[in-house]
Amino acid sequence: MAQQLNIGLIGYGFMGRTHSNAYRQAPQFFDLEYQPILKACCARNQEKIKAFAANWGYESFETDWKTLVARDDIDAVDICVPNNLHKEIAIAAAEAGKMILCEKPIAMNTAEAEEMCAAVEKAGVKNTVWYNYRRVPAVTLAKQLIDEGKLGRIFHYRANFLQDWTISEDLPQGGEALWRLDVEAAGSGVTGDLLAHCIDTAIWLNGSIKTVSAMTETFIKERQHQLTGKVEKVGIDDACAFLARCANGSLATFESTRYARGHKALYTFEINGEHASIKWDLHDLHRLDWFDHGDESRVRGWRSIHVTDGDHPYMDHWWVPGLQIGYEHSFVHQVADFLEGLAKGEAVSPTFRDALETQKVCDAVLASGKSGQWVEVG
Amino acid sequence: MAQQLNIGLIGYGFMGRTHSNAYRQAPQFFDLEYQPILKACCARNQEKIKAFAANWGYESFETDWKTLVARDDIDAVDICVPNNLHKEIAIAAAEAGKMILCEKPIAMNTAEAEEMCAAVEKAGVKNTVWYNYRRVPAVTLAKQLIDEGKLGRIFHYRANFLQDWTISEDLPQGGEALWRLDVEAAGSGVTGDLLAHCIDTAIWLNGSIKTVSAMTETFIKERQHQLTGKVEKVGIDDACAFLARCANGSLATFESTRYARGHKALYTFEINGEHASIKWDLHDLHRLDWFDHGDESRVRGWRSIHVTDGDHPYMDHWWVPGLQIGYEHSFVHQVADFLEGLAKGEAVSPTFRDALETQKVCDAVLASGKSGQWVEVG
Amino acid sequence: MAQQLNIGLIGYGFMGRTHSNAYRQAPQFFDLEYQPILKACCARNQEKIKAFAANWGYESFETDWKTLVARDDIDAVDICVPNNLHKEIAIAAAEAGKMILCEKPIAMNTAEAEEMCAAVEKAGVKNTVWYNYRRVPAVTLAKQLIDEGKLGRIFHYRANFLQDWTISEDLPQGGEALWRLDVEAAGSGVTGDLLAHCIDTAIWLNGSIKTVSAMTETFIKERQHQLTGKVEKVGIDDACAFLARCANGSLATFESTRYARGHKALYTFEINGEHASIKWDLHDLHRLDWFDHGDESRVRGWRSIHVTDGDHPYMDHWWVPGLQIGYEHSFVHQVADFLEGLAKGEAVSPTFRDALETQKVCDAVLASGKSGQWVEVG
Amino acid sequence: MAQQLNIGLIGYGFMGRTHSNAYRQAPQFFDLEYQPILKACCARNQEKIKAFAANWGYESFETDWKTLVARDDIDAVDICVPNNLHKEIAIAAAEAGKMILCEKPIAMNTAEAEEMCAAVEKAGVKNTVWYNYRRVPAVTLAKQLIDEGKLGRIFHYRANFLQDWTISEDLPQGGEALWRLDVEAAGSGVTGDLLAHCIDTAIWLNGSIKTVSAMTETFIKERQHQLTGKVEKVGIDDACAFLARCANGSLATFESTRYARGHKALYTFEINGEHASIKWDLHDLHRLDWFDHGDESRVRGWRSIHVTDGDHPYMDHWWVPGLQIGYEHSFVHQVADFLEGLAKGEAVSPTFRDALETQKVCDAVLASGKSGQWVEVG
Repeated sequence: MAQQLNIGLIGYGFMGRTHSNAYRQAPQFFDLEYQPILKACCARNQEKIKAFAANWGYESFETDWKTLVARDDIDAVDICVPNNLHKEIAIAAAEAGKMILCEKPIAMNTAEAEEMCAAVEKAGVKNTVWYNYRRVPAVTLAKQLIDEGKLGRIFHYRANFLQDWTISEDLPQGGEALWRLDVEAAGSGVTGDLLAHCIDTAIWLNGSIKTVSAMTETFIKERQHQLTGKVEKVGIDDACAFLARCANGSLATFESTRYARGHKALYTFEINGEHASIKWDLHDLHRLDWFDHGDESRVRGWRSIHVTDGDHPYMDHWWVPGLQIGYEHSFVHQVADFLEGLAKGEAVSPTFRDALETQKVCDAVLASGKSGQWVEVG
Repeated sequence: MAQQLNIGLIGYGFMGRTHSNAYRQAPQFFDLEYQPILKACCARNQEKIKAFAANWGYESFETDWKTLVARDDIDAVDICVPNNLHKEIAIAAAEAGKMILCEKPIAMNTAEAEEMCAAVEKAGVKNTVWYNYRRVPAVTLAKQLIDEGKLGRIFHYRANFLQDWTISEDLPQGGEALWRLDVEAAGSGVTGDLLAHCIDTAIWLNGSIKTVSAMTETFIKERQHQLTGKVEKVGIDDACAFLARCANGSLATFESTRYARGHKALYTFEINGEHASIKWDLHDLHRLDWFDHGDESRVRGWRSIHVTDGDHPYMDHWWVPGLQIGYEHSFVHQVADFLEGLAKGEAVSPTFRDALETQKVCDAVLASGKSGQWVEVG
Repeated sequence: MAQQLNIGLIGYGFMGRTHSNAYRQAPQFFDLEYQPILKACCARNQEKIKAFAANWGYESFETDWKTLVARDDIDAVDICVPNNLHKEIAIAAAEAGKMILCEKPIAMNTAEAEEMCAAVEKAGVKNTVWYNYRRVPAVTLAKQLIDEGKLGRIFHYRANFLQDWTISEDLPQGGEALWRLDVEAAGSGVTGDLLAHCIDTAIWLNGSIKTVSAMTETFIKERQHQLTGKVEKVGIDDACAFLARCANGSLATFESTRYARGHKALYTFEINGEHASIKWDLHDLHRLDWFDHGDESRVRGWRSIHVTDGDHPYMDHWWVPGLQIGYEHSFVHQVADFLEGLAKGEAVSPTFRDALETQKVCDAVLASGKSGQWVEVG
Repeated sequence: MAQQLNIGLIGYGFMGRTHSNAYRQAPQFFDLEYQPILKACCARNQEKIKAFAANWGYESFETDWKTLVARDDIDAVDICVPNNLHKEIAIAAAEAGKMILCEKPIAMNTAEAEEMCAAVEKAGVKNTVWYNYRRVPAVTLAKQLIDEGKLGRIFHYRANFLQDWTISEDLPQGGEALWRLDVEAAGSGVTGDLLAHCIDTAIWLNGSIKTVSAMTETFIKERQHQLTGKVEKVGIDDACAFLARCANGSLATFESTRYARGHKALYTFEINGEHASIKWDLHDLHRLDWFDHGDESRVRGWRSIHVTDGDHPYMDHWWVPGLQIGYEHSFVHQVADFLEGLAKGEAVSPTFRDALETQKVCDAVLASGKSGQWVEVG
C-alpha cells in the first residue's frame, strides 16, 4: 500500500499545470511506494486558484503561501511562482521541514541560490529543481551512452535554445503572463529562462564549465509595462550567446534568443566525442541522433533513433514501440524519480546544489556579457 | 457542475490502458459538461482486473462482461477485447441501453458489423469506434485543409502502415498478448489491425472507396499456438497491399505489413491535390508536411508544420507552441469530443456506421486478395 | 595511350545533353583505355544540330540518321530520340556493326525490343540502355549490400516515381518538347517514362517480377496536339500503380504519376529484408538510408549515409568526403563502365536483353491496367 | 565567336582539379563571350604536372611558376598552391599584367592581403578569390531573398563548418597532402581553411563584422611532420569558435572544427530576420530551408526548397526540376560569372578587396583567441 505524500503547490500558471498533471499521472504509469496527494494549491487570486483547484482535484486552496507552508498536512512544497519569489518561499518551506520541488532557475542569482542550498541542507529536507529536460527519454539515453564511455574523449558541446515569440514591439512586459520579460520578476531574460536549461543539461552530460565569454543583447529597448502602464526600459537579455571551456577539456558554445524567427522552442544540443556523436532537439524530442564511428565505413551515418522502445529510458512505462510521448512526460518522470528516491532515501538530481552550479554559470555569463571579459565560473 | 457518465470498460490490455488514461485526462484539459467516472472494469482474470482497477482508480471490477453490461450504474460500455468478442458484447450493451465505445476494427466482418449497427441504431444509443488517429492534431488539421478546398481536385491518396515486430519465426501466435496473430480472435491480420486505420482515415479525408485490387501474403506459414501448444497454420495476412479507385476519381494505394524491418508503427499518408499536397506520419505525429503550389515559385517547398500552436486543432488545450504531445492524446481528444457530442445531443464520428464502411472495404480487400479480382466495395 | 571510340549521337534534346556531357567528363575522372570522341551528332533540324555540335565540340553533324549510321568513322551509335524511332535506328546500327547506347525505354513494346535484341546479338555488337540510376553511387551501394546478403530474405520492395509537371489542362501534347505526352511517339506515359526506371532498378536489386496487377489513369482526357493543332484525346497513362509478386517471394508495389503536386522527380525505393532495410530517393540522391537490425537495440535507427566517401562506389573518382555529386554523374559512370567493359571485352549491364525484361514488365503492367486482371510477365 | 582567355594554373591538387573542371565545363552550359583555354599548368614535380596536363587537356606545362607568369600567351593566372605562396605569385602576376584567380584564403594574414590588393589595383588587373560557396544556387538564392528585403531587420546569423578528419593522433602534418595542418604553409588551421568560407558568406549576406571574441584550441598538440620526419608541435588551430557583432546590429556566432565526429564537410548557416529565416547546409547543398512568418499561421513551417528549378539561380543552365547538381558546379558558376564580368568590363566579387575584408576578420579572430579579449575588426 502506497504511502501518501501531500503536495502543496504554489502558483497556477503554465508550470502549475505541468506539475499537477505529473503528480496525477505518475502513479498510473510507475510502480511507486509514495502516492502524491494534491492536498492544496495556492495563489493570491482566490477566484483563479479555486478554479485551478477544482480542475486538477486539489483538496483545498490557499491565497497566502505562508499559510500553505505552515500547514501540518503538507509534506512537500512545489514552487511555481516567478523567480523573485523562490528564495523566500523555499527558505520558509525548508525551515518548516517541508520537502521542496522548485521551478528553475533556482533563484535570481548565485547569492540567493546559496542561501537556499544552505537552508535545505540545514533542514535536511529533500529538494529538487525542475530541470525537466534531463528526463526526456532521448536525453536520458544520451546520458547513459556518455556514462558508458561510448563517446570517448569529448571535444565539443554545443547547445541552442531558440524561440521567436517576442519579436513584436507591441508585446508588453510584466504582469502575470509576461513576467518573464520583466527583469524585476525574472532576474534575467533568456539566460535564466532558456540557457539555464542548456547549462543544466550540459553540466549533467559533459561536466563542469570553467570559464565563459558572453555576448548579450536587448533588441527592443523599451516596452509598455503591464504593472505600471508606462513604456519602460527593458532590463532583460533578449539574446545571449557564450563560449565556454569545460573541465574535461572540451569547447562549448551556447546560444539563446527569443528572436529566431521560425523556432518555437528549439532546444538543441550536440556532443562530439572521439568515437561517437549525439544530437537532440526538443521539437522532435522522441528522437536521438547518434553517429558511431565504429560502424563499417561504407554504411556509417547518423542514426535517427526513435526512442520509444521498451529498453529506452522510461519507455517501458508507456505504450508500444513507435508510439511517442510528449513534453509533459518529462515532468511525470521527474515526479516518479523523486518519489522513488524518497522511498530509497536517496537524493534525486538535480538538487538545489546542482541547480546552484547552473546558477553560477548563468551569473558568470551575465557578468561576461557586461564586462566583455572571460569570466571564471564561481 | 458536470454531469457524471459512468464508464464500464471491458478488457485491460493495451487499449484498456489508453482508454482509461483518456477518461482520466480529458476533464483536466477540456471544459466538459460530462465527467467520465471510472465505475467498473471487467476481465475474466480476477487478479489482473483487480490490479488494473486499483491502478486506474476504477471503483469496482467484474469478471463477467454480462454482469457489467447489466449493471444499472453503467452508462457507457467500452469494448477493448479481441475482435471476435465485439459483436456479442456490443449487441448486449445496446439492448441494455448503454452507450458504446468499441475498439477497432468494429467486427470480424461486414455481416457482424451490420448486426451491430442495427442494434445500436434500434436502441438509439450513442456509439463510436476508436479510430483514434483522426484526432491526432496534425491529422485533424489535414481534414480542415481538405474540407476548406485548399487541395482542389484530388488525384492521389496513398497510405502505408509498416511494422516489423513479427519477423522472427520463433514468435508464437494466440493467447492474451498475441491474439492479433490468431485468425480466430482477430479475423484477419494487418488488414483489420492496421489497414483498417488507414482506410478509416482515407474515407474521412478523401471520401468513399469504390473498388479494390489486393495482394495478401503470409510470410511465415506456421507458428506455435499459445492456446493449443501446437505448431499450427497461420491464418492471418502478414502483409497486404491494395490498389483502389475512389468515388472522387482519385487513385489510392495502400500497404501494410509487419515485415518492414526498421519501422515500428509507421503509419503514413499522402494526398496530392491540384493545388496542394499533404503528408503525415505517425513516427512524428506532431508534424504535418504541407506543399502549397500557390507559394511564390522560387521559395516553394514542402513545409514542415510543427502542429503545436494554439490555432491548431486541440492544441489550445495543452502546452505552449513548440511542445509536442504524444500518441495517447488522440484518445483523450476522442473522449472529449464524445462527451461534447453527448452534451449537444450529436453523434460523433466515427460511429458504428462509419466503421461499417471501413469494414466493408476490409472485406473487399480480403476477398480480392483471395480471388485475384478487382472487387467492388459493399 | 587511350584508344579512340568514335561516337555518333542521334538527338539533341535533354538526353543528348546528358550523354554528351558524360562522354566529355568520363576521361578526366576515370582511367580509361578508351577515349570517347564526339565524332558526329545528328538531327533533322540543321540549324539546331549545328549549334548543338558547336556547343559540345562534335567534329561534325548530320541531318539524316541513316547517313550517320552508315559512316565508317562511327564506332558507336547513341540513340536519344523519341521511343518510336529506337527500333529502326538500333537495328540499322546493329546491321552496320556499330555498338549501340540506346535511351530507355528500349522500345515501344516487347515485340520491338525482341527484334532489337535479336539484331544486336546477331551482329555481336556491344549494347547498353541508359538506365542511368543504377550508377548513382547510393544505388550502386544498395546493390553491393544486397548482393553481400546483408538484407537476408527480402519481404518487400516498393518504388514510386512522382512528378507534378502535367497538372495544368493548358499544357499541350506532342511536338519536340512534349513528345512524352504523345502516345504515338512515346508508346505509353509514366509507365515507359518513369516506371521503366523503377522496374529496371527493382529487377537489378531484387530479381525478376513474376505477376502484376495494375491500375492506370489518364486524368486529363484531351489536350491540344502541337503537331495537328487540334484538341485530341490523350492516349498516354498519366498515372499508373501496380502490385507485383517477385521470383524471390517478396511483394512489390510501384506507383508513378505526373500529378503528385510537390514532387519534381521523386524517384524513391525501399527494400525491407529480414536483417536490414534500405531507402533511397532521387531528390537527395547522394544519401542512402540504411537500417541494420543487428545494431544494439538502444541505438538502432535509420542511418543517413552521405555517400561521398572514397570507399563508396565511384566516389574515389570525384572530390572529398562531404562534397556531393549530382544527377549528371550517373551518366558519366555509365560511360566509364561501358568503356571499361569494352576494354575487358565484357558486356555491361543493362544490356538490350536486360532492358527487354523491363519492357516485358511494362507491357504486362499496361495490359493489366486495361484488363483488370493479374498478368504474368511475358 | 568567343574570344579566347588563356589560363595558366599553378598547383595540381584538389583545387587544381576543381578549377580545371570548371574551365572545361562552363562553356557548354553558359553562353559566354570568352572561352577559357587551358594553356598551361605548373608545378615543381614534372612527372605529376605532366600527367595532370594530359588528363585535363592543358596545352603545356611548366615546373617554375615564374616561367608561367612570364609567358606572353597567358592571360590569367590561377593560384591553387598553399597559402604561403599566394602573395609572391599574385604580386608577380599582377606586375606581369595578368588577371588573377586566387584560392582562398587570399593570404597568410592581413598584411599580405593588403599588399596583394595594392598590387592588383595598381596593375588594374581583374581579380577574384575562389570563395566558391557564394555560387551554390541555394546560397545565391539566399542572397537574392535578403537583398529583396524579405527578411526585414536581421537579428541573428550563425554559421558552423564541422569536419572530423583529423581526430586520429596518427595523422601526420605537412607535406603535399597535409599542408593544411602545417602552420608554416597554411598560416592557420580551421580559421583560414573553413571559417574563412563562413566569414565570406556572412559578409556577403549580412554585411560587415565589427568585433569578435574567439576561442581557439589545438586538441592534438604534436604530430609527426612529413617534411622533417620529426614529431613537432602543431601550430594550427584545430577548432575555433567566435562571437561577433555585426554592423547591422545583428549578433553572430561562428564555429569550426575538424573534431566533430560524424561531419565530413558540414558548412551550415542560418539567418533569422524579423519576417523570415533561412537555413542552408553543404551536405545537402541543393536545398534551402525557408521560413516565412507571413504564411497563414496554421500552415506555417520551414519549407525545404529543392533548388533545381529554372527560376533558381544558375539552374536554367543545367537539367530539369528535381535533378540536383553537386559541389563542383559552384566553381563552374564562378568561372562563368568571371568571364561574363570580363565581357562587361565589370569586377566580379569576391575580389581581392572583398577577400581582404574576410582576412581581417580571420586575423581579428586569431588575435582574440590569443588575447582573450574582444577585438575590433581592422
